Amino acid sequence: MNRRLSTISRKEVAKLAGVSEATVSRVLNNVGPIKEETRLRVLEAARELGYVPNALAQRFARRKSGNVGVILPFVPKVHLFSTYYFAEILSGIGEAAKACNYDLLLIFREPDSPRDYAKLFRTQKVDACIVLGAQNVAEERAALAELQEEGYPFCLVNQRFDEEGYLTVDADHESGSYTAVQHLIASGFKRIAFLNGPGAFSSSGDRLAGYERALAEAGIPLSEERIFTGNYSRKSGFEAAERMAERIKNKAIDAVFAANDRMAIGLMDGLREHGLEAGKDYGLIGYDDSDSSRIVSPKLSTVSVPFYEMGRRAAMKLLATESEEMENTILPVQLLKRETT
Amino acid sequence: MNRRLSTISRKEVAKLAGVSEATVSRVLNNVGPIKEETRLRVLEAARELGYVPNALAQRFARRKSGNVGVILPFVPKVHLFSTYYFAEILSGIGEAAKACNYDLLLIFREPDSPRDYAKLFRTQKVDACIVLGAQNVAEERAALAELQEEGYPFCLVNQRFDEEGYLTVDADHESGSYTAVQHLIASGFKRIAFLNGPGAFSSSGDRLAGYERALAEAGIPLSEERIFTGNYSRKSGFEAAERMAERIKNKAIDAVFAANDRMAIGLMDGLREHGLEAGKDYGLIGYDDSDSSRIVSPKLSTVSVPFYEMGRRAAMKLLATESEEMENTILPVQLLKRETT
Repeated sequence: MNRRLSTISRKEVAKLAGVSEATVSRVLNNVGPIKEETRLRVLEAARELGYVPNALAQRFARRKSGNVGVILPFVPKVHLFSTYYFAEILSGIGEAAKACNYDLLLIFREPDSPRDYAKLFRTQKVDACIVLGAQNVAEERAALAELQEEGYPFCLVNQRFDEEGYLTVDADHESGSYTAVQHLIASGFKRIAFLNGPGAFSSSGDRLAGYERALAEAGIPLSEERIFTGNYSRKSGFEAAERMAERIKNKAIDAVFAANDRMAIGLMDGLREHGLEAGKDYGLIGYDDSDSSRIVSPKLSTVSVPFYEMGRRAAMKLLATESEEMENTILPVQLLKRETT
Repeated sequence: MNRRLSTISRKEVAKLAGVSEATVSRVLNNVGPIKEETRLRVLEAARELGYVPNALAQRFARRKSGNVGVILPFVPKVHLFSTYYFAEILSGIGEAAKACNYDLLLIFREPDSPRDYAKLFRTQKVDACIVLGAQNVAEERAALAELQEEGYPFCLVNQRFDEEGYLTVDADHESGSYTAVQHLIASGFKRIAFLNGPGAFSSSGDRLAGYERALAEAGIPLSEERIFTGNYSRKSGFEAAERMAERIKNKAIDAVFAANDRMAIGLMDGLREHGLEAGKDYGLIGYDDSDSSRIVSPKLSTVSVPFYEMGRRAAMKLLATESEEMENTILPVQLLKRETT
């Protein structure tokens, strides 16, 4: 389907409607929030000029899709919606979508398949799109760059590409991580291990920076041997226990900061099999304030992240006509002291 | 948009394509799974006859929506995706949708708004649709009846309308409830209260039937005073504690069967405030085998329901071409004995 009008027709339509060519494009391509009055004026001008190609005639006849797309990572057998992180963000997006009278189109992205996000707009499946779990890898960057170039409205949640001008809603993970480690230090721990997630997520980099800052400020030397990497799954936390147990027993590690609660809880379970109890034999702090962190025994100290609000804000930026500014947002996080520290 | 062709053209197209009129309708309306070869044959015949109205011409030019719709109840501020029940069913639907190359369109249904499900098909937003949290109320019945009459493919999950011929994937809640109560009786409990959900859900009726059967079999008289109703939320379980606490203390109730884990956990919390501990001062069994039921302390005895598989099956019935039978499925559930019984 032909996305663009010829320059001539667009210019003529713009002139008659008394708007810019860019506005005409946005209306004809159904991209971005636009005042209903402007939209009607442009469509009327296009009709009056009889300059509307057939493909577009169809589009006029139809309402825009009415869908906001949410691109999600897909991992077979993983119950995606049952993870606190995605469940909360999606709930927030859903709340905003409902308020703005949009439906939610979920698109599962397979890890190794090509990422043609722009196609979702070209085929009119979505009017705007939110990308969750984006990673700093080549295909992702290319797919996002294409969206940006084509002027399609999209927003990233919990992932920044600082060098690009992408619309983003993030949380202040550097400060959250700093506060968590500072709390461990204040509780008397000195040999604090860090179980981080993969580096392709900006939040992992942010948390590493916060960890380093807290140690530096307390004059504790950074030791690469205390930095571990998991993949944010409970299993990867459980497996990290194998690598940490002996070193906790011989006091080379006295506390752990885990980059999310799932890994922290997996680690707790794993270390328990070695006879080590969180809050007794070692300090432990997680990250996210998931439901599980509140229910697990002992209750997990953690950092609360407003995932629901992040999702809601991202959707409001894209869908609401006036209420939200189209600029980046970084929301604050909050330390929650419980039984493991 | 005109959904139907005139009888003449449909008949002619059917004759030329060598298929039934019903098949022609299904192809032209983009309804239901259909062999690609058949679809092409029908479209070709329609084109050859030059008998294709304009609205349909557009549809031919476009691929079908490629979306499977999921209709969900919407309650403001409730983090829907964070409830185990919906999260699991949606994960299963997502898995099947991905396998069949469909995207998931989530449509939030407000409790008191009109339910025009057929419009989703008329406006080509979806090719098939799954209804979650359907209730046996007048508007719901009317909306589903319209889908059925128009021949749009849809499937209900965890809700039956026995008198109608709707495609359904359910679990055997009568037997699950029976087994749960039987287990309480076998553990020595005799004055077993039942905290059920609202009667508009078939699962509530099924569980009541199972509760009654187990009591009858054990010769325990049914007492209306031991039957309580919540709304499946944790809060409603917490509130039920107020109505039960005194009666547990004076032994008028010695155990509770709650119709889901959320209510059971809320009840546990509420009764704890009255100094009553599950598994010690009273027996308690929940239903669902949610993540929380495994993590809470004491660990909650419960009945495991294959929600993920129910969602997956429903989507496969609608989307897969050959693998699943288009008939109703009732999946088995399983008793899990833990620390509260």
